Amino acid sequence: MPNGPPRAVVLLSGGLDSATTLAIALRDGFACYALSFAYGQRQRVELAAAERVARALGVIEHRTAVIDLRTFGGSALTADIAVPKDRSESDMGHGIPITYVPARNTIFLSYALAWAEVLGAYDLFIGVNAVDYSGYPDCRPEYIAAFETLAGLATAAGAEQRGRFRLHAPLLHLGKADIIREGVALGVDYTLTHSCYDPVAELACGHCDACLLRRRGFDTARIPDPTHYASSSHEGKHP
Amino acid sequence: MPNGPPRAVVLLSGGLDSATTLAIALRDGFACYALSFAYGQRQRVELAAAERVARALGVIEHRTAVIDLRTFGGSALTADIAVPKDRSESDMGHGIPITYVPARNTIFLSYALAWAEVLGAYDLFIGVNAVDYSGYPDCRPEYIAAFETLAGLATAAGAEQRGRFRLHAPLLHLGKADIIREGVALGVDYTLTHSCYDPVAELACGHCDACLLRRRGFDTARIPDPTHYASSSHEGKHP
Repeated sequence: MPNGPPRAVVLLSGGLDSATTLAIALRDGFACYALSFAYGQRQRVELAAAERVARALGVIEHRTAVIDLRTFGGSALTADIAVPKDRSESDMGHGIPITYVPARNTIFLSYALAWAEVLGAYDLFIGVNAVDYSGYPDCRPEYIAAFETLAGLATAAGAEQRGRFRLHAPLLHLGKADIIREGVALGVDYTLTHSCYDPVAELACGHCDACLLRRRGFDTARIPDPTHYASSSHEGKHP
Repeated sequence: MPNGPPRAVVLLSGGLDSATTLAIALRDGFACYALSFAYGQRQRVELAAAERVARALGVIEHRTAVIDLRTFGGSALTADIAVPKDRSESDMGHGIPITYVPARNTIFLSYALAWAEVLGAYDLFIGVNAVDYSGYPDCRPEYIAAFETLAGLATAAGAEQRGRFRLHAPLLHLGKADIIREGVALGVDYTLTHSCYDPVAELACGHCDACLLRRRGFDTARIPDPTHYASSSHEGKHP
């Protein structure tokens, strides 16, 4: 066991949710190791955001694992499928979004678990939340519980009962506005983060599901949205 | 749902166990999609074996996903740590081997799950067995059960109850000799497979745990070991 504060591996996408999750892990006293993925996604600008967030919030180490989810196809985030735009909330709330990447969180958490085992860490953090789990199967509370069980069985540390793995999902029951309030209270600078599925010249499109949820979150929280959108007409619509 | 026989994703390392597992999946009537990994392992000769086995047994498709487990270090199979040689059975049976790769099966199965979801497959096959699970935490029956539970929760197909994921580990309770007998009965040509952790000019070393277990398996099954070992002196010792 390493000395000092307990270590945690935190999945960091560069988006609003994972930045807030990292701030919570730091507040809770963990020495944080941030893990990002280059997975053939179109929004490589996310990785630059992850790097900025990791540096600003202060992690021990930030690694980016290169994996290729395109091998198996099947998502607007990794293949050449159009990202849906300007969907209503009821459309977003129904069914599994086309932007769903098969088994993505399972793959990400598996890598986090591997790193945790090497680090002697027993805590993993992931920024899934109530808004996501209406659509993504691997964002549901029962999924989080099942992965935590698996982690204890999958690892040498778990098998030898040297520690108990915990998968923390501190945003699980929060809506976007609650997350933003929490992050602002913890000093997260959301201008460093990036949520958009379909950026235009590194600026958020303002129309994809991620942009719409983010904008509504700031509106609901009554906090000015610091995001720079590609289309200024939308900044007028959502002041 | 695709028409025709049910599809299965079979993890195929090129070793004796996974070749036998593939033969069992084929016998059971599955249309098999074989999945291998290039994970920075020293024994790249394994991948050539996987390709030979996939072709000989007849899969629909064989893919090799490139992943880099060295990112996190921590195993003789991926880092520059000496592979232990000529260990006694009691040494092998105690503790977690240095050749253990953190969270390896979890990562492999996560990729298999992603491919299964894209294929519309609900069946995954992995060749873990009783000999392995004395040492590797992610080869135990309770681990297999936990991953099967996770798979159902992790995926769109599972969440929408279009099908029930099954993780098959048909060798789970078999020793090496039983596996060899089963494979021979199913017509597996074991000269195509490769088990050695530390090959010498593409030949099995004859001394690492994998070689020792394989040799003893053939001895116990009273089946001639068709493996070509680098050191002929050992073929004399284990005729």
